[in-house]
Amino acid sequence: MGSFKGHALPGTFFFIMGTWWAIKSILKYTCRKQKRTSYLVSKALFYRIEILEGIIIIGMALTGIVGEQFIVGGPHLSLYNYKAGQWVQLLSWHHCTMYFFFGLMGMTNILCTTISSLPASLTKLMMANALFVEAFIFYNHTHGREMLDIFVHQLLVLVILLTGLITFLELFARSNLILELLRSSFILLQGNWFWQIGFVLYPPSGGPAWDATNHDNIMFLTICFCWHYALTFIIIGMIYAFVTWLVKSRVNRFCPSEAGLLKNAEREQESEEEM
Amino acid sequence: MGSFKGHALPGTFFFIMGTWWAIKSILKYTCRKQKRTSYLVSKALFYRIEILEGIIIIGMALTGIVGEQFIVGGPHLSLYNYKAGQWVQLLSWHHCTMYFFFGLMGMTNILCTTISSLPASLTKLMMANALFVEAFIFYNHTHGREMLDIFVHQLLVLVILLTGLITFLELFARSNLILELLRSSFILLQGNWFWQIGFVLYPPSGGPAWDATNHDNIMFLTICFCWHYALTFIIIGMIYAFVTWLVKSRVNRFCPSEAGLLKNAEREQESEEEM
Amino acid sequence: MGSFKGHALPGTFFFIMGTWWAIKSILKYTCRKQKRTSYLVSKALFYRIEILEGIIIIGMALTGIVGEQFIVGGPHLSLYNYKAGQWVQLLSWHHCTMYFFFGLMGMTNILCTTISSLPASLTKLMMANALFVEAFIFYNHTHGREMLDIFVHQLLVLVILLTGLITFLELFARSNLILELLRSSFILLQGNWFWQIGFVLYPPSGGPAWDATNHDNIMFLTICFCWHYALTFIIIGMIYAFVTWLVKSRVNRFCPSEAGLLKNAEREQESEEEM
Amino acid sequence: MGSFKGHALPGTFFFIMGTWWAIKSILKYTCRKQKRTSYLVSKALFYRIEILEGIIIIGMALTGIVGEQFIVGGPHLSLYNYKAGQWVQLLSWHHCTMYFFFGLMGMTNILCTTISSLPASLTKLMMANALFVEAFIFYNHTHGREMLDIFVHQLLVLVILLTGLITFLELFARSNLILELLRSSFILLQGNWFWQIGFVLYPPSGGPAWDATNHDNIMFLTICFCWHYALTFIIIGMIYAFVTWLVKSRVNRFCPSEAGLLKNAEREQESEEEM
Repeated sequence: MGSFKGHALPGTFFFIMGTWWAIKSILKYTCRKQKRTSYLVSKALFYRIEILEGIIIIGMALTGIVGEQFIVGGPHLSLYNYKAGQWVQLLSWHHCTMYFFFGLMGMTNILCTTISSLPASLTKLMMANALFVEAFIFYNHTHGREMLDIFVHQLLVLVILLTGLITFLELFARSNLILELLRSSFILLQGNWFWQIGFVLYPPSGGPAWDATNHDNIMFLTICFCWHYALTFIIIGMIYAFVTWLVKSRVNRFCPSEAGLLKNAEREQESEEEM
Repeated sequence: MGSFKGHALPGTFFFIMGTWWAIKSILKYTCRKQKRTSYLVSKALFYRIEILEGIIIIGMALTGIVGEQFIVGGPHLSLYNYKAGQWVQLLSWHHCTMYFFFGLMGMTNILCTTISSLPASLTKLMMANALFVEAFIFYNHTHGREMLDIFVHQLLVLVILLTGLITFLELFARSNLILELLRSSFILLQGNWFWQIGFVLYPPSGGPAWDATNHDNIMFLTICFCWHYALTFIIIGMIYAFVTWLVKSRVNRFCPSEAGLLKNAEREQESEEEM
Repeated sequence: MGSFKGHALPGTFFFIMGTWWAIKSILKYTCRKQKRTSYLVSKALFYRIEILEGIIIIGMALTGIVGEQFIVGGPHLSLYNYKAGQWVQLLSWHHCTMYFFFGLMGMTNILCTTISSLPASLTKLMMANALFVEAFIFYNHTHGREMLDIFVHQLLVLVILLTGLITFLELFARSNLILELLRSSFILLQGNWFWQIGFVLYPPSGGPAWDATNHDNIMFLTICFCWHYALTFIIIGMIYAFVTWLVKSRVNRFCPSEAGLLKNAEREQESEEEM
Repeated sequence: MGSFKGHALPGTFFFIMGTWWAIKSILKYTCRKQKRTSYLVSKALFYRIEILEGIIIIGMALTGIVGEQFIVGGPHLSLYNYKAGQWVQLLSWHHCTMYFFFGLMGMTNILCTTISSLPASLTKLMMANALFVEAFIFYNHTHGREMLDIFVHQLLVLVILLTGLITFLELFARSNLILELLRSSFILLQGNWFWQIGFVLYPPSGGPAWDATNHDNIMFLTICFCWHYALTFIIIGMIYAFVTWLVKSRVNRFCPSEAGLLKNAEREQESEEEM
């Protein structure tokens, strides 16, 4: 994984999942608000989506594990070299463990959707677990590296830990749009930051890595991290506008007169509640 | 920003906002308690106030950004000096990023008020975000400075982080007067502390800065911080007394007899609830 | 305060308050459970108790402040010695600031009880504030002291911080007996620990202080802290048994037949709820 | 305790309790879902189970304390050697203190079950207390040891602290299956990790301990900890499947037709709630 590709791969995974979870949350929220649309996005559809999501996450995790293990110079499933008396490629095993826990999350997603006796919030718990494990491993990942390398990974640990905490909070405050969007934005930020780490430590242009001992680089990456965060707001804002427009246009097409009446009634009701 | 004015400006901004939020919270609380006063402070008025608040916050953020960028010796929007091969005025860019996130908060305030499909608590989330980003940047702000300088900024990070946590809590405990007053008092404390930092590091009298290596100065600033906090209690107590008096006198002027009856009935009801 | 008496005084204060709060909490809980007893412990009585509590807390705070300021060698209200160009007795000022915030808490207690328009939970907030300020000051209190001295004060900071967090939690989970007992036990622990610090650093027998560089002393104080904590359980258990017995015996004396019937009915109801 | 057996003993205790609590939680959850089964697992049975649980926990704690005190080379209840002027076997006293607090928990369990005037959640509080005390003591336990030794104990502190926090959360979110399973899995993890520490520091094969200065060992133990955690998921998953199957098969045996009807009705209701 000590390469640009090794950082771009998880970065892309997290970016895709972040975008998808933002879409799903906003779609569910908009559907809850306009109850008449229930025939557009039915329950059966959501169940199928959950299973598909689980399969895709497992696929991503397997891609990651296989890539880490069987890449040229990878550990090829051997953990301890008894001849040399030393561990084999522990960093790759670290990454495999992280991917494995995300795979577990995908599997739980499928199980909770198909087996009705399992509590639905188990998926959330496994997501929080996967994130906490990721944060824990990354925290113990950078022994003996250089200042800049440690710093960018510390920021990664920070964002992963916050994502895990938000996911854990969701166990108690269910169907809370604000928390779900916050989680999506942190997942997006993580994806972006993986790309940024790739660019900083292994520039794809082939040039030298950034000067790891220059304090100014750390000062810049501090605000760069914040700019990435602001970028995720814009992405989620665009998704919000798009999904809301999509649902409204569909509702209007199917039952234009009813929807209009409905909306006015709802708006009044809401404004009363918010007051 | 490495000047007295650079600290007095945000200090004044936070002081104004803290005072204003305290007034708004107490006004809303008093109005909720005396439901008959709803014709004095109508819903339409509150909407207009929210939009005005958003515009003022954006104005403050723009003032800060422009001031940081175009002051004599500022970065003038250039981030990297390719000739010299080094970053330009990263500290100013730090401050700009902070102002930018508060500007985002102002913009969200306006959007949430005007667009009804957005959840109202988004403003609170953006406020918490702006505060966390501010704390994060200040935390990475003082590399290689002197002990006293680091200490006063650490206290700043502490108060900003606490404010962010309180604001985040407000997402779950809405319309909780205690939390809102606590947040206002922390914002006031932050404003006061910016002024104090200005006086400590860049005395406006032109005298020398405080001795940065003297442990006694740190010992004093520790309690000075607490005294500033006690001061915010007094400010908020005075605001509370004034707003309560104002609302009561207005109610009495419009409907003296009714209000009296109402108050007695309410007092009884409350005392039952509190028991 | 650098004496045995200076630690025994706040220790005694906290021990008294912890015992009293435990009694009050258990009394309220037992009265809530046996609603018929409301004529024994009336609302008016509780109001008077609250005001008395406030006055006693203010008295304790004043005693502490006056003691710190006007003791032989104290600062006598002078903060800065302009001649010598140095701060006067900052440690005493630290202690005064802590006492002051507890005084504020007592004043809020009186104000919230007498002025009905103030929210009742303000007292809790001020208590949490006083504790957080105390923890903050103690944290910045031991610059340049010896290992053992720092360690015992760190444990003090730990218990104060936990008490503050529990008190803050009580703002949201009102009338929760478990939290109130936990807070009382932490307050008792703090009182005990003040005494323990006095014995460790300034043995009243006049002998030498404990060896501050011996690791074994730290190892012992670690478990000593836990034993003090276990002791608070015993104290609170005894208070619980005594108060419950007192209330029951009084109820039985006034209305023996009724109370018996009532108790059986209640016990059944509870067991259903708990199932 | 500085031996393989001294780590295997608490490891076994925690493993047994973790397994048992997982079974109890899942049993209660399944019974709540299928209300008809209340005649299988009656209230009286649960009360007897609670008392038995308390007795077993006290037994475990006593075994631990006696083992620590009266083992060859143990302190034999003497705390301070006045002749030599030094503390006696403080590490053993540390372990005894931990066992003692778990004994307190067992005693509270019995008291809360038998005395109806005590709040039922007191047991949870004492469990959280026992865990926090354990974490606190382990945190102050490894002064002056080697890197690897400290690291494995730090992980122990981490998992104990998390267990304590989860247990504390359960005070507020009662009968929450997810939290109870999470707690059980952390307790299992703690048990496993005690065994792992035994194997790392005192290999039972008699071979030398692991190289305490090799960074690779730490890197491996990081992921080993995660694998143990994944293992607890598998154990709890198997318990879940077994208990659910057991309850269902019993229900079907007693009232096959009714149960089937009931289940369909419930499934529909749930799916509505979850939507």
